[in-house]
Amino acid sequence: MVFIADKGKVMSVKQCLEYRLTEEQLPAQWYNFLLDLPKALPPVEDVHVPPSAEIMARIRPAELLRQNAPSEQWVDIPAPVRQRLLQVGRPTPLRRALALEAALQTRARIYIKREDTLVTGSFKVGTALAQAYYAREEGRDCLISETGAGQWGMSLALASQMFGLKCKIFMARCSMEQKRYREHYMRLLGTEVAPSPSRATAIGRRLLEQRPDHPGTMGTAISEAIEAALATPGSAYLSGSNVNHVHLHQTLLGQETRAQLALAGEQGPDQMIACVSGGSNLCGFMLPFLRDKKEGRTISFLGAESTAAPRLTQGTYEYCSSDPAGYTPRVLAYSMGPDFIPLPVHAGGLRQHNSSPLVSLLKKEGVLDAVAIEEHEAFEAGRLLLRTEGFLVAPESAHAMAAAIRAAARAREEDREPCIVVLGSGSGMLDLEGYRQVLL
Amino acid sequence: MVFIADKGKVMSVKQCLEYRLTEEQLPAQWYNFLLDLPKALPPVEDVHVPPSAEIMARIRPAELLRQNAPSEQWVDIPAPVRQRLLQVGRPTPLRRALALEAALQTRARIYIKREDTLVTGSFKVGTALAQAYYAREEGRDCLISETGAGQWGMSLALASQMFGLKCKIFMARCSMEQKRYREHYMRLLGTEVAPSPSRATAIGRRLLEQRPDHPGTMGTAISEAIEAALATPGSAYLSGSNVNHVHLHQTLLGQETRAQLALAGEQGPDQMIACVSGGSNLCGFMLPFLRDKKEGRTISFLGAESTAAPRLTQGTYEYCSSDPAGYTPRVLAYSMGPDFIPLPVHAGGLRQHNSSPLVSLLKKEGVLDAVAIEEHEAFEAGRLLLRTEGFLVAPESAHAMAAAIRAAARAREEDREPCIVVLGSGSGMLDLEGYRQVLL
Repeated sequence: MVFIADKGKVMSVKQCLEYRLTEEQLPAQWYNFLLDLPKALPPVEDVHVPPSAEIMARIRPAELLRQNAPSEQWVDIPAPVRQRLLQVGRPTPLRRALALEAALQTRARIYIKREDTLVTGSFKVGTALAQAYYAREEGRDCLISETGAGQWGMSLALASQMFGLKCKIFMARCSMEQKRYREHYMRLLGTEVAPSPSRATAIGRRLLEQRPDHPGTMGTAISEAIEAALATPGSAYLSGSNVNHVHLHQTLLGQETRAQLALAGEQGPDQMIACVSGGSNLCGFMLPFLRDKKEGRTISFLGAESTAAPRLTQGTYEYCSSDPAGYTPRVLAYSMGPDFIPLPVHAGGLRQHNSSPLVSLLKKEGVLDAVAIEEHEAFEAGRLLLRTEGFLVAPESAHAMAAAIRAAARAREEDREPCIVVLGSGSGMLDLEGYRQVLL
Repeated sequence: MVFIADKGKVMSVKQCLEYRLTEEQLPAQWYNFLLDLPKALPPVEDVHVPPSAEIMARIRPAELLRQNAPSEQWVDIPAPVRQRLLQVGRPTPLRRALALEAALQTRARIYIKREDTLVTGSFKVGTALAQAYYAREEGRDCLISETGAGQWGMSLALASQMFGLKCKIFMARCSMEQKRYREHYMRLLGTEVAPSPSRATAIGRRLLEQRPDHPGTMGTAISEAIEAALATPGSAYLSGSNVNHVHLHQTLLGQETRAQLALAGEQGPDQMIACVSGGSNLCGFMLPFLRDKKEGRTISFLGAESTAAPRLTQGTYEYCSSDPAGYTPRVLAYSMGPDFIPLPVHAGGLRQHNSSPLVSLLKKEGVLDAVAIEEHEAFEAGRLLLRTEGFLVAPESAHAMAAAIRAAARAREEDREPCIVVLGSGSGMLDLEGYRQVLL
């Protein structure tokens, strides 16, 4: 038993290592944060012929398009999705990182949301299940998408099986070569996997002509997936990040975290930290706390990006396209420019030349701070976490851990005792080759 | 809500997918099954010079030797071990495999104990923590051991870090080449890893002279680890299976399962199934139910071994040595003979020429049945489990799943509705290369 004194109250709470929720405590609804944003999202520029909106209307399930801007504050989670969320391991635990705190000699209280415990090893599986469900409900029989490091691809591969659908994934070539196990996993589930750029699409062939050793990016894979979906009757084109309905589905992360902090006797977080690229993990984790900020609690939101693609810290806020073929609309976002090809770092999930409009707006409006982390510092943070807390996070999540370790050091210097809540967005067990290359 | 009528009582239970225990419900003691065996274990033959007993007295922590035959029925788990058991993910969930049942069209109720959810991906971590703790308490600063497929090696590597000790592992060469990620993981934790047979020991050099391409076995790795421990002052030699104190530590598996079946409204299992080699997973899982059998409940215990080393189904019950150097005492056990080298199958944890004395006694006395499973059938069972339940088990555990699928088919033919409880002893995420080679 420990006793926490806070704001004049003395509470008696049972100190756990992991705060768990029961199956009944899985949130029943997704939280529509759009109604609580400080400012509306800017309009997109739809310059493609035919318009992107028409393309998306053909290849995206209609309910997902609706969920890009729902009118209701809370969106009900369909029962078949809820059941499978339980099956893949939601709700995930919240770890009080006492061993890490001791190693850092900090009085900061560090909590880690453990998405690494999900069966696919990543938070992505939640939106994959929702999207596969809506695709099936609308009569689609094949799911087509892109993947960077493969976490989203694995999640969609599993979701397609759970709903009895076919699946085809374009995976950035450099990540595919780094992360063969993720490819094997998808194929074991019957998913077809192609390295991007590939010769299977016109845009892929064009990119390979320009640069035969093109390492591929999320962008090249997006263009190819959309082209393939347009050419495949009955298919659905799905996305693992960047778009609002994905951020919406990930709000389970923040809702669960809020309930778990209450179990731990915390009044709420002082700082929340997540890695950031398209930002669905960050938004899903942090935005359910927007209302706490409105109600007067000071919470700082920090996004950790990779120095290999430092959009938020060094990019330009401008209209840009997410894919080289220009199928997706031009959006106002922080960008490294359309021709930027990030280095083939192991944190493949952070290799994207632009951020999403939502993350960019949060940064622009001062709701979100950002920091760029070098790959080596991230892997070192991942190793320290393994050695102290006993679990290995993905290279992407390790960027957030590195930022959290910096925050704890600052708290020590300033003699503060903040409650720091970090998102462990995925497991690093299939990234051990990357850990070896960088650290061993 | 479902209603289960059993033995005249009607109970109302909430149907879950996963039955979880709280941190407080982690058992506080290990169960000493030796006092409940149908017959005492036969004596060992100690023919080595100097005697094995003397060797073990030098290199094994004394408390572990004591726990090979404790006088008490229940052995207290030290608080520092208990805390770390929570940290690595105990208690583990029990899954009601409704999706698998539906795919098999069986009315059998299938439960799977999910040791795959532990941070090292294997049940082995429980005894690793206990053994590292006792080694440290007795002033040892370096842990030395062998590993087959690497699950035990990973677990001991983590445990050594958690207790601030050095660690050295000999890993069967063929498994090391198949499972590089397990090697990387151990090295990331600062553990020294050598392929066995190696040139670091006299026995290793002798084996390599006899056969330069020797694939290595658990036996060769045991001999090398003992030789290295004898040559390293302050070290402790630890084992991941075969010996009684290891089986003792694994009784958490069965104790947790018993509590979880009660939560599920079950009167108890009708059949329990686990893969078997040295048998610590099987014994830890099943033996806590010995008393239920004594009290009149009919429970069949089934061990699934590999056709690559079919000791229990085709071996001879005879005195045999576990390691080619003969450091370990000769024990009465089912064996394929000392010169048998199993094929380099992917279920490296099942590649051992003999079973343990305890498992052999259970088989000899009719307490345990056994079945040998082909590698391909095991991997197919693993894939079906992934596609239905969403999680991937290790090749070893997949042998148990294959046996469970056979049992469910038999129940359907015989129009029975048994409660079948299967042990998912580990995760297959680091065995994806093996799944690919066999199935893709």
